[in-house]
Amino acid sequence: MTASFAVTAPDGLPEVVPGDDLVDLVARAVGRLDLAGPTALADGDVVVVTSKIVSKAEGRVLAASDREQAITDETVRLVATREHAGGVTRIVENRLGLVMAAAGVDGSNTPEGTVLLLPVDPDASARALRAGLRRRLGVQVGVVVTDTAGRPWRQGQTDIAIGAAGLVVLDDLRGQTDTHGRRLDVTAAAVADEIAAAAELVKGKTAGRPVAVVRGLGHLVTEEDGPGARTLVRTGPDDMFALGTAEAYAQGWKDATADGPAPGEPAAPARSSHRQH
Amino acid sequence: MTASFAVTAPDGLPEVVPGDDLVDLVARAVGRLDLAGPTALADGDVVVVTSKIVSKAEGRVLAASDREQAITDETVRLVATREHAGGVTRIVENRLGLVMAAAGVDGSNTPEGTVLLLPVDPDASARALRAGLRRRLGVQVGVVVTDTAGRPWRQGQTDIAIGAAGLVVLDDLRGQTDTHGRRLDVTAAAVADEIAAAAELVKGKTAGRPVAVVRGLGHLVTEEDGPGARTLVRTGPDDMFALGTAEAYAQGWKDATADGPAPGEPAAPARSSHRQH
Repeated sequence: MTASFAVTAPDGLPEVVPGDDLVDLVARAVGRLDLAGPTALADGDVVVVTSKIVSKAEGRVLAASDREQAITDETVRLVATREHAGGVTRIVENRLGLVMAAAGVDGSNTPEGTVLLLPVDPDASARALRAGLRRRLGVQVGVVVTDTAGRPWRQGQTDIAIGAAGLVVLDDLRGQTDTHGRRLDVTAAAVADEIAAAAELVKGKTAGRPVAVVRGLGHLVTEEDGPGARTLVRTGPDDMFALGTAEAYAQGWKDATADGPAPGEPAAPARSSHRQH
Repeated sequence: MTASFAVTAPDGLPEVVPGDDLVDLVARAVGRLDLAGPTALADGDVVVVTSKIVSKAEGRVLAASDREQAITDETVRLVATREHAGGVTRIVENRLGLVMAAAGVDGSNTPEGTVLLLPVDPDASARALRAGLRRRLGVQVGVVVTDTAGRPWRQGQTDIAIGAAGLVVLDDLRGQTDTHGRRLDVTAAAVADEIAAAAELVKGKTAGRPVAVVRGLGHLVTEEDGPGARTLVRTGPDDMFALGTAEAYAQGWKDATADGPAPGEPAAPARSSHRQH
């Protein structure tokens, strides 16, 4: 007895431009996949799509000269800033609740002189792609829309799920027991993020493979579209890292030397005083 | 043309106890895998092992009554604390440079009355397993030792690589260009973490499948053991989240009202004054 799944990504997708039909593009791409089964895509598969092609199809393209303003516009809250040779990188919470460098505004793999914004609503994009693939190919699949993000305390980036439909995104293990009958320390596996990470291993950043199909995880595919990847966002009172260390320290210092709030509840005032509009 | 890989995990490994031969256990486990090829394990495969069974084999077992002291002993630096119904969770940097709740000391999937520490040196454990599998099965594989960790800003946990051998852990893309010939914003994919995350999707937390084999990513398997997963650790000056927001804020407040350092360089004093020994 084994458990297994496979991840496959087709080469040779055409460059996506505003107005392209994403369902058509993905259906054609997975039609080239060499997967077993009566059709290239089957019930229970998970289709993983890089947000970049979703953004392009949705026309989320701006002139590169507007990049800094675009980052400001996408920002809900400044978390931290990092100075480097090329300027200052802003780590922010964006309007999707995602904490990312440059709010997820992307200047690579885009036509010269342009930058890309994230999709307006990646969960809605995932639902639309899922419905379109059902209509077009008659299959019930899960869909994940991914982006690439850095992490505190870890070098390098991994892909995460910023949109999802028809998929368990958080595999809640609370109340389950281990093989010794004891309560699990781990409470919920972020399976949509793990699927996004797995797909990145074949999609890659330079290879022109923005779509992957995951086969063998059908137990995570749901009939309902479900709550989407938005449920993976943790901000607000649960977020112990709402501000960078330097920013929070400076805020504490400032509040102590001015008419600031008492230090009993430090996180809340630090957070609100850094809010960006 | 496609790119693809498969992840497979065998059922039915026996309970691992101190002194067990991990090479023997893994070799037997993957011998039950239904994989194509002349042997169950092939050159270029990546063997992914949950750190829990490495710790058990290495005898890193303590009485549960020593849990809080064990967390203190494994801790290099306190990052943040979180109060909850059951007490206080300490988020710390442990002696491996990993920032984790409870320093990675684990009380699930262990015999009643015991807790597990992380392996002494997970990169060394990975190298030893790799060498043992080469001797025993004549194959050159990559090895990843995983643990489960939470992330700031994201709900749920994912598996990460805490040990690695014979594998590219960070796929450095700096200097590479996208399909438009432009420099990539993304600088390095943390592929060892992505492999750990992928493997968790079949290993699971309750299923008794602590080993998985990844086939199809042979381009990431190296002849040399390489620098290991330790290179994925980002602490020190690069770490913008060395303290939780509340802790950094309180430190700033305290330093401002005492003989603290000037606020020009807030991160360093905040960090050192919270150092734990």
